[in-house]
Amino acid sequence: MPREVRERQMLDAAVTAFARHGYQAASMDDIAEAAGVSKPLVYLYLKSKEDLFTACVRREIGALVAAVRRGTRERGVSADQQLWNGLTAFFAHTAARPDGVAVLHRARTQGEPFAREVAAMRVEVLTLVTELLAQAAQDAGCDGALAEREVSGLAHALVGAAESLAEWANTRTAQRADAAPSAKETAATLMNFCWAGLENLTKGARWVPAPR
Amino acid sequence: MPREVRERQMLDAAVTAFARHGYQAASMDDIAEAAGVSKPLVYLYLKSKEDLFTACVRREIGALVAAVRRGTRERGVSADQQLWNGLTAFFAHTAARPDGVAVLHRARTQGEPFAREVAAMRVEVLTLVTELLAQAAQDAGCDGALAEREVSGLAHALVGAAESLAEWANTRTAQRADAAPSAKETAATLMNFCWAGLENLTKGARWVPAPR
Repeated sequence: MPREVRERQMLDAAVTAFARHGYQAASMDDIAEAAGVSKPLVYLYLKSKEDLFTACVRREIGALVAAVRRGTRERGVSADQQLWNGLTAFFAHTAARPDGVAVLHRARTQGEPFAREVAAMRVEVLTLVTELLAQAAQDAGCDGALAEREVSGLAHALVGAAESLAEWANTRTAQRADAAPSAKETAATLMNFCWAGLENLTKGARWVPAPR
Repeated sequence: MPREVRERQMLDAAVTAFARHGYQAASMDDIAEAAGVSKPLVYLYLKSKEDLFTACVRREIGALVAAVRRGTRERGVSADQQLWNGLTAFFAHTAARPDGVAVLHRARTQGEPFAREVAAMRVEVLTLVTELLAQAAQDAGCDGALAEREVSGLAHALVGAAESLAEWANTRTAQRADAAPSAKETAATLMNFCWAGLENLTKGARWVPAPR
């Protein structure tokens, strides 16, 4: 069997083990057994538990970012359609790969150097979302009222909301699969949460606190 | 000096040190020096570095939850006013205590048992937000269309967005204090992001994807 196939099997087994048991508790013996290879072969290919975890984190980061990029690549559609495309792609990916998402969560809460990899991915996604929001505002003829700082804040709100909802949806699925929200339902929840406000902003309409 | 005053000084110094250097790198020598006490006294009062970190995490969790509860305790106001009150209280707190917020972030990414404390706090805040959203929907005469599941999803979106924005605002402040958003500006960004959508939902109005 070619090395790349073997490596993929090892990473698949490792993602499952790290997702379920965490970095410390996951056992290299169990990972080798689940991958159907010997433990020395895992060490030969992936070198150490730390390197194996890093390889899992990088693979799952790559897959998640690729899914979001694919979801948002269609141009010339309305801003809400593009946001909907991106959100359904994101939640379809996180629903299809719960162990992958769990590994990224583990990495984020495992301390350095793993947390840094996830933070870099987050910056990449935030940059993409910021560009899309700025473009949507420009397309709507927004006269510069949506300053760079506000677009950046809105992008952080959107990404934080999406992360939190993905975790919520996967927790629901783990607890009771038959009552779990579908990727489209989760995306619709987030669209309902934020689209009306974003659309208002691109038109220059703002919420202001009532005088007390 | 009474023990409680000494302990508060130790926790203040520890929060600053853990926020800046992280759990591993923070030095008990430096913490004792910054608190103006001897290192043996720190160990006598707080027992170990782990217990000291846990005490910091619990204090900052208590302060944050108390701020949000104070912010949302006024009843009989409009739903958007109550959300605005809660968000301004939250962002005022996170802006005033950046080291406290950083300690909670460190705890979340430090692995167990610290991450569990922050997760429990998150559940407490989510429960409060879910109750407030359900109440707002009921007050608006929402005819049950906002099912329990959707309210829970919306609460997760709101809390995730708020966490992400708090981190963003504090990063901005650390980078360039004179261009940092105020707590009210950050709260306004989040109100603009989500209020129009939440208000629509309480009135039964939904975003639906256009037929393609």
